[in-house]
Amino acid sequence: MREFLPPGWDVQGNHGLALVIAGPSGAGKSSVIAELLRRDPTLSFSVSVTTRPRRPDEVDGKDYTFITDEEFDRRIRAGELLEWTTYGGHRYGTPRDELVPRLGRGEEVVVNVEVRGALALRRARLPGRVVLVFLVPPTREELVRRIRARGTESEEDLARRLRIAEEECRAIPEFDYLVVNDELAAAVGRVEAILTAERLRIRRCSP
Amino acid sequence: MREFLPPGWDVQGNHGLALVIAGPSGAGKSSVIAELLRRDPTLSFSVSVTTRPRRPDEVDGKDYTFITDEEFDRRIRAGELLEWTTYGGHRYGTPRDELVPRLGRGEEVVVNVEVRGALALRRARLPGRVVLVFLVPPTREELVRRIRARGTESEEDLARRLRIAEEECRAIPEFDYLVVNDELAAAVGRVEAILTAERLRIRRCSP
Repeated sequence: MREFLPPGWDVQGNHGLALVIAGPSGAGKSSVIAELLRRDPTLSFSVSVTTRPRRPDEVDGKDYTFITDEEFDRRIRAGELLEWTTYGGHRYGTPRDELVPRLGRGEEVVVNVEVRGALALRRARLPGRVVLVFLVPPTREELVRRIRARGTESEEDLARRLRIAEEECRAIPEFDYLVVNDELAAAVGRVEAILTAERLRIRRCSP
Repeated sequence: MREFLPPGWDVQGNHGLALVIAGPSGAGKSSVIAELLRRDPTLSFSVSVTTRPRRPDEVDGKDYTFITDEEFDRRIRAGELLEWTTYGGHRYGTPRDELVPRLGRGEEVVVNVEVRGALALRRARLPGRVVLVFLVPPTREELVRRIRARGTESEEDLARRLRIAEEECRAIPEFDYLVVNDELAAAVGRVEAILTAERLRIRRCSP
Protein backbone atom coordinates (compact mmCIF):
# COMPACT_ATOMS: atom_id res chain seq x y z
CA MET A 1 0.00 0.00 0.00
CA ARG A 2 2.97 2.27 0.49
CA GLU A 3 3.23 2.94 -3.23
CA PHE A 4 0.02 5.00 -3.04
CA LEU A 5 1.39 7.29 -0.33
CA PRO A 6 3.06 10.59 -1.18
CA PRO A 7 6.76 10.87 -0.29
CA GLY A 8 7.37 11.50 3.40
CA TRP A 9 4.25 9.65 4.54
CA ASP A 10 3.72 6.07 5.59
CA VAL A 11 1.44 3.84 7.65
CA GLN A 12 2.21 3.15 11.29
CA GLY A 13 2.73 -0.58 10.71
CA ASN A 14 6.14 0.04 9.22
CA HIS A 15 7.45 1.76 12.33
CA GLY A 16 8.15 0.99 15.96
CA LEU A 17 5.15 0.82 18.25
CA ALA A 18 5.10 0.59 22.04
CA LEU A 19 1.74 -0.87 23.09
CA VAL A 20 1.54 0.11 26.74
CA ILE A 21 -1.00 -1.74 28.90
CA ALA A 22 -1.75 -0.18 32.27
CA GLY A 23 -4.62 -0.16 34.75
CA PRO A 24 -5.39 -0.86 38.39
CA SER A 25 -4.17 -3.99 40.14
CA GLY A 26 -6.78 -6.67 39.45
CA ALA A 27 -7.56 -5.46 35.92
CA GLY A 28 -5.82 -8.53 34.49
CA LYS A 29 -2.90 -6.91 32.62
CA SER A 30 -0.61 -9.95 32.80
CA SER A 31 -3.24 -12.42 31.56
CA VAL A 32 -4.27 -10.15 28.66
CA ILE A 33 -0.65 -9.60 27.63
CA ALA A 34 0.24 -13.32 27.85
CA GLU A 35 -2.69 -14.22 25.57
CA LEU A 36 -1.92 -11.34 23.18
CA LEU A 37 1.71 -12.49 22.80
CA ARG A 38 0.55 -16.07 22.29
CA ARG A 39 -1.81 -15.01 19.47
CA ASP A 40 0.61 -12.64 17.72
CA PRO A 41 4.20 -13.95 17.68
CA THR A 42 5.42 -10.81 15.86
CA LEU A 43 5.03 -8.91 19.14
CA SER A 44 7.71 -8.94 21.79
CA PHE A 45 7.44 -8.18 25.50
CA SER A 46 9.35 -5.54 27.40
CA VAL A 47 10.55 -7.31 30.55
CA SER A 48 10.40 -4.94 33.53
CA VAL A 49 12.77 -5.05 36.49
CA THR A 50 11.43 -5.32 40.04
CA THR A 51 12.70 -5.63 43.59
CA ARG A 52 9.71 -7.69 44.73
CA PRO A 53 10.21 -11.42 45.40
CA ARG A 54 9.53 -13.81 42.52
CA ARG A 55 6.20 -15.68 42.77
CA PRO A 56 6.34 -19.48 42.27
CA ASP A 57 4.73 -19.28 38.79
CA GLU A 58 7.05 -16.55 37.51
CA VAL A 59 10.22 -17.00 35.45
CA ASP A 60 13.16 -14.64 36.04
CA GLY A 61 14.01 -12.74 32.85
CA LYS A 62 10.69 -13.64 31.23
CA ASP A 63 7.92 -12.26 33.47
CA TYR A 64 10.20 -9.82 35.29
CA THR A 65 13.91 -9.49 35.88
CA PHE A 66 14.22 -9.77 39.65
CA ILE A 67 16.94 -7.54 41.06
CA THR A 68 18.07 -6.25 44.46
CA ASP A 69 17.42 -2.75 45.76
CA GLU A 70 21.13 -1.96 45.29
CA GLU A 71 21.04 -3.07 41.66
CA PHE A 72 17.86 -1.01 41.14
CA ASP A 73 19.63 2.07 42.51
CA ARG A 74 22.64 1.40 40.26
CA ARG A 75 20.40 1.18 37.19
CA ILE A 76 18.68 4.46 38.03
CA ARG A 77 22.05 6.19 38.48
CA ALA A 78 23.35 4.71 35.21
CA GLY A 79 20.30 6.04 33.34
CA GLU A 80 19.27 2.51 32.41
CA LEU A 81 15.60 2.89 33.37
CA LEU A 82 13.05 4.82 31.29
CA GLU A 83 10.68 5.10 34.26
CA TRP A 84 10.33 3.59 37.71
CA THR A 85 7.75 3.56 40.50
CA THR A 86 7.22 2.13 43.95
CA TYR A 87 4.07 0.07 44.37
CA GLY A 88 3.06 -1.98 47.41
CA GLY A 89 6.49 -1.39 48.96
CA HIS A 90 8.47 -2.74 45.96
CA ARG A 91 10.05 -0.98 43.02
CA TYR A 92 9.32 -1.56 39.33
CA GLY A 93 11.09 -0.11 36.30
CA THR A 94 11.21 -0.25 32.50
CA PRO A 95 14.76 -0.82 31.19
CA ARG A 96 15.76 1.43 28.30
CA ASP A 97 17.36 -1.59 26.58
CA GLU A 98 14.03 -3.42 26.42
CA LEU A 99 12.37 -0.69 24.37
CA VAL A 100 14.66 1.77 22.60
CA PRO A 101 16.69 -0.64 20.38
CA ARG A 102 13.61 -2.65 19.33
CA LEU A 103 11.48 0.42 18.55
CA GLY A 104 14.42 1.81 16.61
CA ARG A 105 14.38 -1.33 14.45
CA GLY A 106 10.65 -0.78 13.79
CA GLU A 107 9.46 -3.57 16.07
CA GLU A 108 6.24 -3.67 18.08
CA VAL A 109 6.73 -4.11 21.82
CA VAL A 110 4.13 -4.70 24.55
CA VAL A 111 4.76 -3.06 27.92
CA ASN A 112 3.12 -3.98 31.26
CA VAL A 113 3.44 -0.96 33.50
CA GLU A 114 1.84 0.96 36.36
CA VAL A 115 -0.41 3.89 35.44
CA ARG A 116 2.14 6.58 36.27
CA GLY A 117 4.81 4.60 34.40
CA ALA A 118 2.62 4.58 31.28
CA LEU A 119 2.38 8.36 31.34
CA ALA A 120 6.15 8.60 31.85
CA LEU A 121 6.70 6.41 28.74
CA ARG A 122 4.55 8.80 26.70
CA ARG A 123 6.87 11.63 27.70
CA ALA A 124 10.07 9.60 27.14
CA ARG A 125 10.51 10.58 23.45
CA LEU A 126 10.87 6.97 22.31
CA PRO A 127 11.90 6.19 18.69
CA GLY A 128 8.39 5.03 17.73
CA ARG A 129 4.74 5.65 18.51
CA VAL A 130 3.50 5.08 22.07
CA VAL A 131 -0.10 3.85 22.38
CA LEU A 132 -1.59 3.87 25.89
CA VAL A 133 -4.30 1.33 26.74
CA PHE A 134 -6.07 1.51 30.11
CA LEU A 135 -7.46 -1.86 31.20
CA VAL A 136 -10.37 -2.02 33.70
CA PRO A 137 -12.50 -4.77 35.23
CA PRO A 138 -16.16 -4.70 34.08
CA THR A 139 -17.47 -3.14 37.32
CA ARG A 140 -16.31 -1.71 40.62
CA GLU A 141 -17.79 -4.78 42.38
CA GLU A 142 -15.62 -7.03 40.22
CA LEU A 143 -12.56 -4.90 41.01
CA VAL A 144 -13.24 -5.39 44.75
CA ARG A 145 -13.73 -9.13 44.20
CA ARG A 146 -10.44 -9.45 42.29
CA ILE A 147 -8.46 -7.45 44.85
CA ARG A 148 -9.89 -9.67 47.63
CA ALA A 149 -9.02 -12.81 45.63
CA ARG A 150 -5.38 -11.66 45.53
CA GLY A 151 -5.17 -12.42 49.25
CA THR A 152 -5.74 -8.95 50.62
CA GLU A 153 -5.11 -9.33 54.35
CA SER A 154 -7.45 -6.85 56.02
CA GLU A 155 -10.37 -4.52 55.31
CA GLU A 156 -7.92 -1.68 55.83
CA ASP A 157 -5.60 -3.11 53.18
CA LEU A 158 -8.56 -3.54 50.80
CA ALA A 159 -9.64 0.07 51.35
CA ARG A 160 -6.08 1.24 50.63
CA ARG A 161 -5.87 -0.77 47.40
CA LEU A 162 -9.25 0.58 46.28
CA ARG A 163 -8.14 4.14 47.00
CA ILE A 164 -5.04 3.56 44.83
CA ALA A 165 -7.22 2.10 42.04
CA GLU A 166 -9.54 5.13 42.14
CA GLU A 167 -6.58 7.48 42.11
CA GLU A 168 -5.22 5.62 39.05
CA CYS A 169 -8.55 5.84 37.21
CA ARG A 170 -8.33 9.63 37.37
CA ALA A 171 -5.52 9.36 34.79
CA ILE A 172 -7.76 7.65 32.19
CA PRO A 173 -8.22 10.87 30.15
CA GLU A 174 -4.49 10.85 29.44
CA PHE A 175 -4.76 7.41 27.82
CA ASP A 176 -5.73 6.64 24.20
CA TYR A 177 -8.03 3.66 24.72
CA LEU A 178 -10.15 2.14 27.48
CA VAL A 179 -10.56 -1.66 27.38
CA VAL A 180 -12.87 -3.62 29.66
CA ASN A 181 -11.53 -6.99 30.76
CA ASP A 182 -14.85 -8.76 31.32
CA GLU A 183 -13.80 -11.97 29.59
CA LEU A 184 -10.18 -12.68 28.61
CA ALA A 185 -10.72 -13.64 24.94
CA ALA A 186 -12.97 -10.62 24.35
CA ALA A 187 -10.53 -8.22 26.04
CA VAL A 188 -7.61 -9.58 23.99
CA GLY A 189 -9.74 -9.23 20.84
CA ARG A 190 -10.26 -5.55 21.65
CA VAL A 191 -6.54 -4.99 22.14
CA GLU A 192 -5.86 -6.81 18.85
CA ALA A 193 -8.33 -4.49 17.08
CA ILE A 194 -6.52 -1.47 18.55
CA LEU A 195 -3.22 -2.90 17.28
CA THR A 196 -4.66 -3.53 13.79
CA ALA A 197 -6.11 -0.02 13.61
CA GLU A 198 -2.88 1.58 14.82
CA ARG A 199 -0.98 -0.33 12.11
CA LEU A 200 -3.27 1.25 9.48
CA ARG A 201 -2.85 4.80 10.78
CA ILE A 202 -1.38 7.28 8.34
CA ARG A 203 1.40 9.46 9.67
CA ARG A 204 4.32 11.53 8.56
CA CYS A 205 7.53 9.49 8.57
CA SER A 206 10.38 10.42 10.80
CA PRO A 207 13.12 11.78 8.53
CA MET B 1 -16.80 0.76 31.79
CA ARG B 2 -18.07 4.32 32.04
CA GLU B 3 -18.17 4.16 35.83
CA PHE B 4 -14.35 4.20 35.88
CA LEU B 5 -14.13 7.41 33.87
CA PRO B 6 -13.87 10.80 35.55
CA PRO B 7 -16.81 13.18 34.99
CA GLY B 8 -16.76 14.88 31.60
CA TRP B 9 -15.00 11.98 29.87
CA ASP B 10 -16.35 9.00 27.98
CA VAL B 11 -15.46 6.45 25.32
CA GLN B 12 -16.23 7.12 21.69
CA GLY B 13 -18.66 4.21 21.42
CA ASN B 14 -21.34 6.17 23.23
CA HIS B 15 -21.33 8.98 20.69
CA GLY B 16 -22.09 9.56 17.03
CA LEU B 17 -19.46 8.39 14.58
CA ALA B 18 -19.29 9.06 10.84
CA LEU B 19 -17.12 6.33 9.27
CA VAL B 20 -16.20 7.87 5.93
CA ILE B 21 -14.87 5.51 3.25
CA ALA B 22 -13.20 7.17 0.26
CA GLY B 23 -10.59 6.25 -2.32
CA PRO B 24 -10.07 6.12 -6.06
CA SER B 25 -12.62 4.61 -8.40
CA GLY B 26 -11.84 0.88 -8.52
CA ALA B 27 -10.79 0.65 -4.86
CA GLY B 28 -13.97 -1.29 -4.08
CA LYS B 29 -15.72 1.15 -1.70
CA SER B 30 -19.26 -0.11 -2.41
CA SER B 31 -18.39 -3.80 -1.94
CA VAL B 32 -16.52 -3.15 1.31
CA ILE B 33 -19.38 -1.03 2.68
CA ALA B 34 -22.07 -3.57 1.67
CA GLU B 35 -20.21 -6.36 3.47
CA LEU B 36 -19.51 -4.16 6.51
CA LEU B 37 -23.22 -3.27 6.85
CA ARG B 38 -24.15 -6.93 6.46
CA ARG B 39 -21.77 -7.95 9.27
CA ASP B 40 -22.72 -5.15 11.68
CA PRO B 41 -26.44 -4.35 11.66
CA THR B 42 -25.96 -1.56 14.23
CA LEU B 43 -24.40 0.55 11.45
CA SER B 44 -26.52 2.55 9.04
CA PHE B 45 -25.64 3.87 5.60
CA SER B 46 -25.76 7.48 4.49
CA VAL B 47 -27.48 7.39 1.10
CA SER B 48 -25.92 9.93 -1.25
CA VAL B 49 -27.78 11.78 -4.00
CA THR B 50 -26.54 11.68 -7.60
CA THR B 51 -27.54 12.91 -11.03
CA ARG B 52 -26.02 9.90 -12.80
CA PRO B 53 -28.35 7.26 -14.28
CA ARG B 54 -29.20 4.29 -12.09
CA ARG B 55 -27.35 1.06 -12.99
CA PRO B 56 -29.48 -2.09 -13.35
CA ASP B 57 -28.27 -3.57 -10.03
CA GLU B 58 -28.89 -0.42 -8.03
CA VAL B 59 -31.95 0.40 -5.90
CA ASP B 60 -33.17 4.03 -5.75
CA GLY B 61 -33.11 5.28 -2.17
CA LYS B 62 -30.88 2.43 -1.00
CA ASP B 63 -27.66 2.62 -3.03
CA TYR B 64 -28.20 6.24 -4.10
CA THR B 65 -31.12 8.60 -4.35
CA PHE B 66 -31.26 9.38 -8.06
CA ILE B 67 -32.31 12.97 -8.75
CA THR B 68 -32.35 15.41 -11.66
CA ASP B 69 -29.91 18.26 -12.18
CA GLU B 70 -32.67 20.73 -11.30
CA GLU B 71 -33.41 18.94 -8.02
CA PHE B 72 -29.67 18.83 -7.25
CA ASP B 73 -29.47 22.61 -7.76
CA ARG B 74 -32.51 23.12 -5.54
CA ARG B 75 -30.95 21.05 -2.75
CA ILE B 76 -27.71 23.04 -2.91
CA ARG B 77 -29.63 26.34 -2.74
CA ALA B 78 -31.74 25.05 0.18
CA GLY B 79 -28.56 24.11 2.10
CA GLU B 80 -29.61 20.45 2.15
CA LEU B 81 -26.22 19.05 1.05
CA LEU B 82 -23.20 18.83 3.34
CA GLU B 83 -20.84 18.49 0.36
CA TRP B 84 -21.08 17.87 -3.36
CA THR B 85 -18.74 17.13 -6.24
CA THR B 86 -18.81 16.48 -9.95
CA TYR B 87 -17.18 13.23 -11.02
CA GLY B 88 -17.21 11.72 -14.51
CA GLY B 89 -19.69 14.35 -15.67
CA HIS B 90 -22.27 13.62 -12.94
CA ARG B 91 -22.91 15.20 -9.58
CA TYR B 92 -22.83 13.49 -6.18
CA GLY B 93 -23.77 14.91 -2.79
CA THR B 94 -24.21 13.98 0.88
CA PRO B 95 -27.61 15.07 2.27
CA ARG B 96 -27.47 16.77 5.65
CA ASP B 97 -30.53 14.74 6.74
CA GLU B 98 -28.67 11.45 6.25
CA LEU B 99 -25.98 12.35 8.75
CA VAL B 100 -26.75 15.15 11.19
CA PRO B 101 -29.88 13.73 12.92
CA ARG B 102 -28.40 10.24 13.28
CA LEU B 103 -25.03 11.44 14.60
CA GLY B 104 -26.93 13.69 17.00
CA ARG B 105 -28.68 10.59 18.37
CA GLY B 106 -25.28 8.92 18.91
CA GLU B 107 -25.59 6.55 15.95
CA GLU B 108 -22.75 5.24 13.76
CA VAL B 109 -23.15 6.00 10.07
CA VAL B 110 -21.08 4.79 7.11
CA VAL B 111 -20.52 7.23 4.26
CA ASN B 112 -19.38 6.39 0.70
CA VAL B 113 -17.93 9.54 -0.77
CA GLU B 114 -15.37 10.94 -3.20
CA VAL B 115 -12.00 11.95 -1.77
CA ARG B 116 -12.70 15.70 -1.81
CA GLY B 117 -16.12 15.03 -0.25
CA ALA B 118 -14.49 13.15 2.63
CA LEU B 119 -12.29 16.13 3.41
CA ALA B 120 -15.33 18.42 3.24
CA LEU B 121 -17.14 16.21 5.78
CA ARG B 122 -14.21 16.56 8.17
CA ARG B 123 -14.63 20.34 7.99
CA ALA B 124 -18.45 20.22 8.28
CA ARG B 125 -18.55 20.40 12.11
CA LEU B 126 -20.83 17.38 12.43
CA PRO B 127 -22.35 16.42 15.83
CA GLY B 128 -20.04 13.41 16.27
CA ARG B 129 -16.57 12.19 15.42
CA VAL B 130 -15.57 11.89 11.74
CA VAL B 131 -13.14 9.06 10.91
CA LEU B 132 -11.64 9.10 7.42
CA VAL B 133 -10.61 5.80 5.82
CA PHE B 134 -8.79 5.80 2.47
CA LEU B 135 -9.30 2.56 0.54
CA VAL B 136 -6.76 1.48 -2.11
CA PRO B 137 -6.29 -1.54 -4.37
CA PRO B 138 -3.23 -3.67 -3.48
CA THR B 139 -1.08 -2.34 -6.34
CA ARG B 140 -1.09 0.20 -9.15
CA GLU B 141 -1.33 -2.68 -11.65
CA GLU B 142 -4.50 -3.89 -9.93
CA LEU B 143 -5.93 -0.36 -10.02
CA VAL B 144 -5.37 -0.25 -13.79
CA ARG B 145 -6.94 -3.70 -14.15
CA ARG B 146 -10.03 -2.67 -12.15
CA ILE B 147 -10.50 0.58 -14.04
CA ARG B 148 -10.26 -1.34 -17.35
CA ALA B 149 -12.77 -3.92 -16.07
CA ARG B 150 -15.27 -1.10 -15.47
CA GLY B 151 -15.60 -0.73 -19.24
CA THR B 152 -13.20 2.13 -19.82
CA GLU B 153 -13.70 3.04 -23.45
CA SER B 154 -10.28 4.20 -24.66
CA GLU B 155 -6.63 4.41 -23.64
CA GLU B 156 -7.19 8.16 -23.34
CA ASP B 157 -10.09 7.58 -20.94
CA LEU B 158 -7.95 5.13 -18.91
CA ALA B 159 -5.10 7.64 -18.70
CA ARG B 160 -7.55 10.31 -17.50
CA ARG B 161 -8.99 8.04 -14.80
CA LEU B 162 -5.49 7.09 -13.64
CA ARG B 163 -4.53 10.76 -13.44
CA ILE B 164 -7.59 11.41 -11.26
CA ALA B 165 -6.69 8.43 -9.04
CA GLU B 166 -3.14 9.73 -8.59
CA GLU B 167 -4.43 13.20 -7.83
CA GLU B 168 -6.75 11.68 -5.20
CA CYS B 169 -3.93 9.69 -3.57
CA ARG B 170 -2.14 12.95 -2.84
CA ALA B 171 -4.83 13.61 -0.22
CA ILE B 172 -4.00 10.43 1.75
CA PRO B 173 -2.07 12.35 4.45
CA GLU B 174 -5.30 14.14 5.38
CA PHE B 175 -6.97 10.79 6.16
CA ASP B 176 -6.79 8.83 9.41
CA TYR B 177 -6.36 5.29 8.08
CA LEU B 178 -5.18 3.56 4.89
CA VAL B 179 -6.82 0.22 4.10
CA VAL B 180 -5.74 -2.08 1.28
CA ASN B 181 -8.56 -3.88 -0.46
CA ASP B 182 -6.65 -6.95 -1.65
CA GLU B 183 -9.34 -9.42 -0.65
CA LEU B 184 -12.85 -8.34 0.39
CA ALA B 185 -13.13 -10.25 3.70
CA ALA B 186 -9.68 -9.09 4.82
CA ALA B 187 -10.38 -5.46 3.90
CA VAL B 188 -13.71 -5.51 5.77
CA GLY B 189 -11.93 -7.07 8.77
CA ARG B 190 -9.49 -4.15 8.78
CA VAL B 191 -12.33 -1.61 8.68
CA GLU B 192 -14.08 -3.50 11.51
CA ALA B 193 -10.89 -3.31 13.60
CA ILE B 194 -10.75 0.45 12.98
CA LEU B 195 -14.38 0.73 14.11
CA THR B 196 -13.73 -1.36 17.25
CA ALA B 197 -10.67 0.72 18.14
CA GLU B 198 -12.48 4.01 17.54
CA ARG B 199 -15.27 2.83 19.87
CA LEU B 200 -12.67 2.30 22.64
CA ARG B 201 -11.09 5.73 22.22
CA ILE B 202 -11.20 7.96 25.26
CA ARG B 203 -12.35 11.52 24.65
CA ARG B 204 -13.81 14.49 26.38
CA CYS B 205 -17.62 14.53 26.13
CA SER B 206 -19.40 17.31 24.38
CA PRO B 207 -21.19 19.28 27.10
